[in-house]
Amino acid sequence: MSQDVDSADDISVVLPDGSELSVERGATVEDVAYEIGPGLGRDTVAGRIDGELVSKDEPITESGANIEIVTEDSDEAIRVMRHSASHCLAQAVERLYDDVQLAIGPPTDEGFYYDFDDIDLDEEDLAEINAEIEDIIEADYEIEREEVSIEEARERLADQRYKLELLEEFAEDGETVTFYKQGEWEDLCAGPHVESTGEIGAVDLLEIAAAYWRGDEDNPMQTRVYGTAFESESDLEAFHERRREAERRDHRKIGAEMDLFSIQDVTGPGLPLYHPPGKTILRELESYVADLNLDAGYEYVETPHLFKTDLWEKSGHYENYQDDMFVFDVGEDEYGLKPMNCPGHATIFDDSSWSYRDMPIKYAENGKVYRKEQSGELSGLSRVWAFTIDDGHLFVRPEDIRQEVEQIMDLIDDVLTTFDLEYEVALATRPEKSVGSDEIWERAESQLESVLESRSMEYEVEEGDGAFYGPKIDFAFEDAIGRRWDGPTVQLDFNMPERFDLSYVGEDNEDHKPVMIHRALYGSYERFFMVLIEHFAGNFPLWLAPEQVRVLPISDANLGYAHRVKNEFDEFRVEVDDRDSTIERKIRAAHDDRVPYMIIVGDNEQEDGNISVRDRFEEQEYDVEIDTFRDHLRSERDEKRTEPDFLAD
Amino acid sequence: MSQDVDSADDISVVLPDGSELSVERGATVEDVAYEIGPGLGRDTVAGRIDGELVSKDEPITESGANIEIVTEDSDEAIRVMRHSASHCLAQAVERLYDDVQLAIGPPTDEGFYYDFDDIDLDEEDLAEINAEIEDIIEADYEIEREEVSIEEARERLADQRYKLELLEEFAEDGETVTFYKQGEWEDLCAGPHVESTGEIGAVDLLEIAAAYWRGDEDNPMQTRVYGTAFESESDLEAFHERRREAERRDHRKIGAEMDLFSIQDVTGPGLPLYHPPGKTILRELESYVADLNLDAGYEYVETPHLFKTDLWEKSGHYENYQDDMFVFDVGEDEYGLKPMNCPGHATIFDDSSWSYRDMPIKYAENGKVYRKEQSGELSGLSRVWAFTIDDGHLFVRPEDIRQEVEQIMDLIDDVLTTFDLEYEVALATRPEKSVGSDEIWERAESQLESVLESRSMEYEVEEGDGAFYGPKIDFAFEDAIGRRWDGPTVQLDFNMPERFDLSYVGEDNEDHKPVMIHRALYGSYERFFMVLIEHFAGNFPLWLAPEQVRVLPISDANLGYAHRVKNEFDEFRVEVDDRDSTIERKIRAAHDDRVPYMIIVGDNEQEDGNISVRDRFEEQEYDVEIDTFRDHLRSERDEKRTEPDFLAD
Repeated sequence: MSQDVDSADDISVVLPDGSELSVERGATVEDVAYEIGPGLGRDTVAGRIDGELVSKDEPITESGANIEIVTEDSDEAIRVMRHSASHCLAQAVERLYDDVQLAIGPPTDEGFYYDFDDIDLDEEDLAEINAEIEDIIEADYEIEREEVSIEEARERLADQRYKLELLEEFAEDGETVTFYKQGEWEDLCAGPHVESTGEIGAVDLLEIAAAYWRGDEDNPMQTRVYGTAFESESDLEAFHERRREAERRDHRKIGAEMDLFSIQDVTGPGLPLYHPPGKTILRELESYVADLNLDAGYEYVETPHLFKTDLWEKSGHYENYQDDMFVFDVGEDEYGLKPMNCPGHATIFDDSSWSYRDMPIKYAENGKVYRKEQSGELSGLSRVWAFTIDDGHLFVRPEDIRQEVEQIMDLIDDVLTTFDLEYEVALATRPEKSVGSDEIWERAESQLESVLESRSMEYEVEEGDGAFYGPKIDFAFEDAIGRRWDGPTVQLDFNMPERFDLSYVGEDNEDHKPVMIHRALYGSYERFFMVLIEHFAGNFPLWLAPEQVRVLPISDANLGYAHRVKNEFDEFRVEVDDRDSTIERKIRAAHDDRVPYMIIVGDNEQEDGNISVRDRFEEQEYDVEIDTFRDHLRSERDEKRTEPDFLAD
Repeated sequence: MSQDVDSADDISVVLPDGSELSVERGATVEDVAYEIGPGLGRDTVAGRIDGELVSKDEPITESGANIEIVTEDSDEAIRVMRHSASHCLAQAVERLYDDVQLAIGPPTDEGFYYDFDDIDLDEEDLAEINAEIEDIIEADYEIEREEVSIEEARERLADQRYKLELLEEFAEDGETVTFYKQGEWEDLCAGPHVESTGEIGAVDLLEIAAAYWRGDEDNPMQTRVYGTAFESESDLEAFHERRREAERRDHRKIGAEMDLFSIQDVTGPGLPLYHPPGKTILRELESYVADLNLDAGYEYVETPHLFKTDLWEKSGHYENYQDDMFVFDVGEDEYGLKPMNCPGHATIFDDSSWSYRDMPIKYAENGKVYRKEQSGELSGLSRVWAFTIDDGHLFVRPEDIRQEVEQIMDLIDDVLTTFDLEYEVALATRPEKSVGSDEIWERAESQLESVLESRSMEYEVEEGDGAFYGPKIDFAFEDAIGRRWDGPTVQLDFNMPERFDLSYVGEDNEDHKPVMIHRALYGSYERFFMVLIEHFAGNFPLWLAPEQVRVLPISDANLGYAHRVKNEFDEFRVEVDDRDSTIERKIRAAHDDRVPYMIIVGDNEQEDGNISVRDRFEEQEYDVEIDTFRDHLRSERDEKRTEPDFLAD
């Protein structure tokens, strides 16, 4: 049979670049890889058929299937290896503990876990289990895939109640399921896995947590063991170093140390209280974006937190978002805390009549919104019930989208650059299900594209990933220790103007529907604040630091002079350390409190009317003139420089 | 019987100055007045026995009774006359309408009303009723008081269902009630009244409203007729003039004209939305008190709007304030929107340990609170569900009360003086039921007194009018048209520190309980904003005006120059009127929009590079240098002067 004509037994598969390849029906993913090239064939560890991760020996049966090859170096490959590591964990636990019940054990972005029941484990047991895992890897058991009838599977899993429950979900009588077997141990599993346990690199168990079966609080609580696996010991060590660094920077830890915020049982979960130092930082952040917003022609508005559900019905939130809202009755009416600020802003826009000459209308609000996350998912400032968005909503003529998005991109660039956060952008386009005419989508997408093109930015296009109500540009940025965070979004909206029947009178004297643009520069203050705390490890730039300068008198004799010096810096947040303590301990305390600058004054300084300046890098300069340092502080603050640089001048 | 020895038939009454007077048992209030002096006797129109307003012919039966005389010129006297006027209203209505049901008809601060049922009235009917009232006054019927047994009363009121209901509440079988009779008409009434209808001065009916029987939404809706009465036609005319002035200044009307705020059905009652011009003013108000607070050593904090009711139980709000709170369940817990900011601030204070060296701790927050008023009582910004307090809470050592209250008084004086609001203060002292030791009350009251004494201020002492948890100083101020408003309060609190078990370590190394001080400078932004709108009639001082300057080009040829001039004033809120319109109409529009200053530019100005300046008093000056006017604007804004005074220089 010649290669260039499809026979009845050939099927055509689609590769990631869109090209097609003809292969025999029943060929495996690995066969496809060898067909592309022998090098790729050798490197193949797994594959994807129509997006689903499968073992490399999974046969392809449907013509037109989209096939991806997963190689050793890919993120997919490490997930496959971690999945196999989770099997080793379960195998080790079954060797060491009798009658343990197995639940599930998937890979995660950071490693893997396995959930157990009928077992009593604590952190001290992890070393023994880890050693057992290493023995299993050492033994280099072949990992074999086996198709088994459901009846047979029921017998094999007879004493595993959670597995039985899963089994009944996955398959029906007459169907088959797959088992993966390594040495004496096997598990009901869809795979894929590496070929033998020896292919698993360096494994480390990390911690034990409690987890509900299927994440449901009504189900039994199980014991979850977290671990991770890397190709090499050095990769594992690098992971541990990143983890220690992230722990050192943990915003909950630094938040408590610096008295930035608290979340307390008596007041409720997910409801942060900002203490003075934290609120000082928030006020600086607010003031910074307020200046940007006002310069860019935004006008501030204020809307309450409570609205009648009539509004939420009008906006569509009631239908689509109700489960995440705090909703309750007041007398005969139902009310909801706002989960978003947009319907309030649309209501204000709708209260006046507008001409094309007034457009665009741009509202800004630091609006605190309330979203009912599951209590178990709340964590520090990263997942909360109450958070404030530096929200902006624009009502624009369709032809002005480009110009306004351009301005928003400038604002976001200004903000992220100010904090030394490097970013990437992606354009998410029309999904299959969407509202709005072809014309408006095409016009909007082409304007967004031309903004991105004109900035000669690299950007990814996420086809079909836009919201049903409009395309968007997503930002993602990287913090000081290389972690990637979802950032601001610029979201076009053709739906809300429909629902609120918004309009303006055009040059043609007819009513026209504006496009709404949702945007935030920080996103939520809570999340951005969390990122900043960890990004700067609490060592905030001068303009944000709750205490900018601390004056340290060397002895009580210098206390009066210390206060006179303080008064010279009264445009800054400055304190005098008047405690009865040694200068060494005062310096240590100022370092611990992450104060950007210390002014040290002793008899010499007092005599000369000068000061000594020390920064948080432990650099010190003597005999500095007060005016010189004040001028420096002003420029460091006003230019929002991220590190104290007086002593680097 | 000699005057200086009490006989068995004599009783002793206590006069307002504390002196005692011996009179015969059964003497009337009028008798007491004649006893004091014949002039007073003649002027007496009514009296008070132990605080209760009574007719001047009410007999005094108890020895030790406190007696006050009410004369013609007093506020009491006008209330008595208005009460009689409400009887004339009911008499007139019964003459004109068959089978009408009477409810109640009391005097009010501004006049009187009477509630009717089974009647169909509209505003056009008021003239006829008013004419009938005037006939009744003209007829000068004697108003006679009559004591009647309850059985007899039941017969007389047999066809008046509301009166019968009241009757059964007021008296039991065997007791008597009083009727007041004038001409053919009588009413169940406790009085007091004037002696005859001819003593009623000028009466005017004002409007018709709907009102629920006993103010309860579950009861029938009745027709309320409002009226007022004064001694003279000229007083009545002055009242109407004040009323017209108040209507011209009504914040709801000006709020809509200036697009300051809206309260909409779809979003909910009592939940204002601030539009850009309104929020601009609020932001200026916020920024002004933030500067004051930060200079005075306050630190800003931020607390959520939603708290677990555990917190409200701890603070006592749950027990005492629950009906006014928005409370609802979230999962298994109950939550409430905050009606006050203090428990949140106490929680933050309590999260750290404090030494006497740290004290006082002073927190500030622009905290939006939620209180569930009856929907029917909501009105514009004066009664709302959601309002923001410029709240401050101080945690102070008992010995520092004086110094801190002194500072707060300075802050309040600063604020009220800035808005040209003259004020009075009153000290409210310990009530019978109170918490806290004698020592702390005496110490606190004497410190408050000494603050007031040291300022050589006139102040009233309202004995026993303090809250159960501490004494307070109340401010009241007068607006531009002479209306008096309750103003800021400085409230000491010995209770909250107990409930939260707050403490600081004193110099003696022991734990001590701080005193909490609640204070606000504006009170609620909503109410203060309302007062400011009406006080200034929308003609805000330059620093508050949403649009501070408008540039009016005389013709299109001057449009480019107008924009260049605008750029010269870009530190102000300035707009160019680029509409295709005459200069006269542009000037009229700027006046209507209450813009403090217009800059008018025509060919002459453009040639000279100068401007013409016109203010809202319609004064105009030509050929002004741009720098001169900008310098003036800066000082007028920064000094927060209340009226444009460039042309008054």
